[in-house]
Amino acid sequence: MQPFDSQSPDAYERVFDELFPICRSITGPGFRESLDLMCRHVPLDVRAVPSGTKVLDWTVPQEWRIRSAKLTGPDGETVADFAESNLSVVNYSSSVDEQLSLEELLPRLHTIPAMPDAVPYVTSYYRENWGFCMTYRQKSELKPGTYHAKIDAEMVDGHLNYGVCDLPGQSQQVFLLSTYLCHPSMANNELSGPLALMGLYQRLAARRDRRFTYRFLVIPETIGSITYLSEEGKKLQEKMAGGLVLTCLGGPMEGLSYKASRRDAVGNPAVVDTLARHLNSADPEEWRFRDFTPDGGSDERQYCSPGFDLPVGQFARSVYGEYPEYHTSKDDKEFMSIDAVLRAVDALEEFIDAFEYEGMKLTNLSPYGEPQLGRRDLYPNMNSHQTRDHSSDHQVDSRAFRTFLLNILSFSDGTVTLRDIAERLGEPVTRLVPAARALESQDLLKRS
Amino acid sequence: MQPFDSQSPDAYERVFDELFPICRSITGPGFRESLDLMCRHVPLDVRAVPSGTKVLDWTVPQEWRIRSAKLTGPDGETVADFAESNLSVVNYSSSVDEQLSLEELLPRLHTIPAMPDAVPYVTSYYRENWGFCMTYRQKSELKPGTYHAKIDAEMVDGHLNYGVCDLPGQSQQVFLLSTYLCHPSMANNELSGPLALMGLYQRLAARRDRRFTYRFLVIPETIGSITYLSEEGKKLQEKMAGGLVLTCLGGPMEGLSYKASRRDAVGNPAVVDTLARHLNSADPEEWRFRDFTPDGGSDERQYCSPGFDLPVGQFARSVYGEYPEYHTSKDDKEFMSIDAVLRAVDALEEFIDAFEYEGMKLTNLSPYGEPQLGRRDLYPNMNSHQTRDHSSDHQVDSRAFRTFLLNILSFSDGTVTLRDIAERLGEPVTRLVPAARALESQDLLKRS
Amino acid sequence: MQPFDSQSPDAYERVFDELFPICRSITGPGFRESLDLMCRHVPLDVRAVPSGTKVLDWTVPQEWRIRSAKLTGPDGETVADFAESNLSVVNYSSSVDEQLSLEELLPRLHTIPAMPDAVPYVTSYYRENWGFCMTYRQKSELKPGTYHAKIDAEMVDGHLNYGVCDLPGQSQQVFLLSTYLCHPSMANNELSGPLALMGLYQRLAARRDRRFTYRFLVIPETIGSITYLSEEGKKLQEKMAGGLVLTCLGGPMEGLSYKASRRDAVGNPAVVDTLARHLNSADPEEWRFRDFTPDGGSDERQYCSPGFDLPVGQFARSVYGEYPEYHTSKDDKEFMSIDAVLRAVDALEEFIDAFEYEGMKLTNLSPYGEPQLGRRDLYPNMNSHQTRDHSSDHQVDSRAFRTFLLNILSFSDGTVTLRDIAERLGEPVTRLVPAARALESQDLLKRS
Repeated sequence: MQPFDSQSPDAYERVFDELFPICRSITGPGFRESLDLMCRHVPLDVRAVPSGTKVLDWTVPQEWRIRSAKLTGPDGETVADFAESNLSVVNYSSSVDEQLSLEELLPRLHTIPAMPDAVPYVTSYYRENWGFCMTYRQKSELKPGTYHAKIDAEMVDGHLNYGVCDLPGQSQQVFLLSTYLCHPSMANNELSGPLALMGLYQRLAARRDRRFTYRFLVIPETIGSITYLSEEGKKLQEKMAGGLVLTCLGGPMEGLSYKASRRDAVGNPAVVDTLARHLNSADPEEWRFRDFTPDGGSDERQYCSPGFDLPVGQFARSVYGEYPEYHTSKDDKEFMSIDAVLRAVDALEEFIDAFEYEGMKLTNLSPYGEPQLGRRDLYPNMNSHQTRDHSSDHQVDSRAFRTFLLNILSFSDGTVTLRDIAERLGEPVTRLVPAARALESQDLLKRS
Repeated sequence: MQPFDSQSPDAYERVFDELFPICRSITGPGFRESLDLMCRHVPLDVRAVPSGTKVLDWTVPQEWRIRSAKLTGPDGETVADFAESNLSVVNYSSSVDEQLSLEELLPRLHTIPAMPDAVPYVTSYYRENWGFCMTYRQKSELKPGTYHAKIDAEMVDGHLNYGVCDLPGQSQQVFLLSTYLCHPSMANNELSGPLALMGLYQRLAARRDRRFTYRFLVIPETIGSITYLSEEGKKLQEKMAGGLVLTCLGGPMEGLSYKASRRDAVGNPAVVDTLARHLNSADPEEWRFRDFTPDGGSDERQYCSPGFDLPVGQFARSVYGEYPEYHTSKDDKEFMSIDAVLRAVDALEEFIDAFEYEGMKLTNLSPYGEPQLGRRDLYPNMNSHQTRDHSSDHQVDSRAFRTFLLNILSFSDGTVTLRDIAERLGEPVTRLVPAARALESQDLLKRS
Repeated sequence: MQPFDSQSPDAYERVFDELFPICRSITGPGFRESLDLMCRHVPLDVRAVPSGTKVLDWTVPQEWRIRSAKLTGPDGETVADFAESNLSVVNYSSSVDEQLSLEELLPRLHTIPAMPDAVPYVTSYYRENWGFCMTYRQKSELKPGTYHAKIDAEMVDGHLNYGVCDLPGQSQQVFLLSTYLCHPSMANNELSGPLALMGLYQRLAARRDRRFTYRFLVIPETIGSITYLSEEGKKLQEKMAGGLVLTCLGGPMEGLSYKASRRDAVGNPAVVDTLARHLNSADPEEWRFRDFTPDGGSDERQYCSPGFDLPVGQFARSVYGEYPEYHTSKDDKEFMSIDAVLRAVDALEEFIDAFEYEGMKLTNLSPYGEPQLGRRDLYPNMNSHQTRDHSSDHQVDSRAFRTFLLNILSFSDGTVTLRDIAERLGEPVTRLVPAARALESQDLLKRS
């Protein structure tokens, strides 16, 4: 097996191509097979919770095991076939073997009139039901007659599965990276999250130093986070630095879009929220921002339920509900774009780098008057129109750098962070790091 | 006597027609007669404070009793006659019986050049004076010659009167509804307030349950509130939930206009202020908002004087100073409109309903993870494009309702009110009440 | 010697004309001569700090004493001559007597290509260097050949000088007025500050009553404030009410421009900041506002260094960096304008007057209900359309005055200042003073 190179588009594409065809659901063999594939590159501990287990206000459902599903027309022609597309049957359909008139059939058929060539993705996890999905165009052409709906599926006591692993750091405070793996053949709203999580795992694993313990979690959406919280939620409340739900990280939108945690909405923002707001404010195209809402979203709805109220935001690129391909057969690799996922990994890594600076207070070690920077070759020694905007001095490559030096010195009174100073300047915090490092190397600045 | 039906325009109109012709002032028989008429429908306790009584920095003036006032022209023609219009004499004019040249007369004549067909309403309560009011057109046509000004009025030791009654509630905390009854034949800036107060009395009296004790107060403007405060102000400070001055509730303007209390201006808003700001923010056309100012206004100037600083705002529709008919003969029933007053009663009742929810904290009784609403028929059980925007489930009649459910559950952590949640959603709090009730009926939510 | 009349443009012009030709630097005879000239009108105590003295992170440099500097061309023609313009040599140039080719010479010549007729002002205080300054046009016409650069200057152990004096007030709290005197023949960015400081000294000295002790400080820029802070900084921290750096107070810009202290930037604004923000908000053309920045500026960079963090702002009119004539030979008397400096003195005096009201709390002595102002001739006694917008009453000359009276009474609850009330009304605080005084004279208001 080729090792996963988190800088290479090909690595992501290979994994994508293996995962895409599998028929996943919130339980069952498709989910397990997908998780096993991920385990090749991320050492996930795979756990299993029996059907019927009470998890918070919910109950782990029976496993759904589907073998075949086919809708045959009056002339014996195949109208919809699970073997050709796992979207063509309502996910969690029960077994059926029934002859129906077109009129009786129609309520069982799901389409999208506004997208006549797309097959919708439809589920009915918690109430017994069955149905087929097809394009609106196809449904419009169905002729009267007798149809044969045959689904061979069963609900059996089994397990709900998920995978988790930790990369330890200096602190036992956990930074959670959570994604879900329960949708069948869709790309942006399914595989982009697991792919990005794999990339981040590789990059963080390669570091010799991590401030926090990074936890990677791969679950079925909603019931998975409810199950995980049922087991670990109260423990997490005690020792959580922050967390991110990764979803919909591909697609054509520019920049990443952060959805705040509930804490942000009630005036007690989590550090992830504060950092994301900062980046959004300094560079709104690269770092978009969505307010928290419990209406719509992914597993952060559970992490942020008021009893747990965890400091967990969500990152996406092309967000569910903002692109028509969402939950349809049109959400494919071309729509998602491997490159968009790779750029998401880069941006998430930058976010985590900046997160590790959060809360560190800066102190100017020469706070009475300005230190004489010219003597230290951090300031031009001749005041001339020629040197006002640039300098040939070593390290001083721009007026911006000098502005950063002077501002860090002026505001580092032991009460502010590098982000505070960046905010004052309207710059993303990442741009100030070199100036902070130059001052630290001259013993003019310390962090604590 | 026909009982007053607070839903019927005819009821208001009958009372209006009885009250309109009476010559009221801040004291005297006209005020008493008007108050007696109101007592038929509101069981006011009528009080009397003797002339000369010191009330705060003021003194209760003598009663003004006018019998007749007539200005006769050079040819014996009647120029102005109190018998025809009680606006034609300066209110609180002293007696006079004098022959004057036109030149001597002119400084005694009050008109409005910018509204040549309107007779102004002029008063001189606290400094002895006399004069006549007429249209500017009429004054322009006066010919030279000798005029006879004859006013038969007297200032006598008597009383200042006002009426007050309480509708008791669960709490002894008082919610004050205050209006004035001291202007002669004008409609919007006089009778709209007492009419609305009668309507609100009827509606609140009909309820089996009231959170607060509602106090209804009918006074002469300024000196009446000063007198009432002189007696009851310090007691009110101890036990006041809120209050409203009702004035100018008719006229052509859309929506009601709230004027904040002084507390709002100093960063310590009263609950009435906070609720009114909320409604204004959520629906600015229906609920307008004016900042507090001590310069201009009605009795709230006294309630909000810094020594008392009571939580009293003011509601109006077509506000004094914003319509040219103010304080003129053009402020009549047609300008005011009975229907506008009735709609004001409806809106004020909504305001009071919302006020009774103020300060009640909401708690989600299933706060760990989301409760499974589908199982309770509060959420669609099939996730399909068809069900995303609506649902056939019982009770779930719109996406907005579901949004309200999820937001109430998410934010009801025992620290927020329904208005807080409404504010987050940009909705007037009244729209959220059905969702809150649905959750309460499922034992998912409690108020305290 | 003619006494200095701070109201007369001629007085300022006479002093300007004496000071302008002198070749000043941060040390040396030119600075001392200039300081002696100022001492004729401001009784400054002139202090001397020896070269080599450690002052905070800096060292007092040797004195620069220049006798002559001349650049001669291939044909013996004078190319640049210190005797004709003290800008033509780099300030703090060391001695040189050297023959150079044009190619060798060019790096030693300073010009401004964008302003081909202006001679730049260039300094190299802290690293040994030499050079000549000329117009870009002149440099462009230099022909090949051998040039003779001859500078007769020496660096000698001597002193850094500055002048300081106090005008005592009721409180020992110091209000600092600081300006610098180290630039050679330039007007706005040099002499406008010392001229304005002289005018303010005369005006404040003429008062019989001052709330604060006013300290006047005349220094070389940067190293002067560092030296002063090295000696007095910690003492000042204990007893400072506020301070202003005066710089660039002439030129064509309208209004004054205030630069905030560091405290303003960290959410703990100094009183000078708060007052300046207020004036800016109420009258943004007359009172402009700049946020604090440690990047660019004058001695406030040192006063506001985080160790001292003094409440010192800066006032300017045509601000450095915002006019192209800055640091060039074009910054002359015509550009500066004596009249602009005089208007700056007027505005700064208004600022100081308002500053003396800062922090004084107002109390309404008749706070229960409104006091009856009509009885005190502070309110019209007849309510008529004619009296609504004006009144013939003594003192009540405008509706604005009445608005100010009512607002001061309403809000003076012992917790607010006159500026607080002015802010609520959107007026500069200076406009409210007459109303406050009228209420005080009626014993309706007190300050404390």
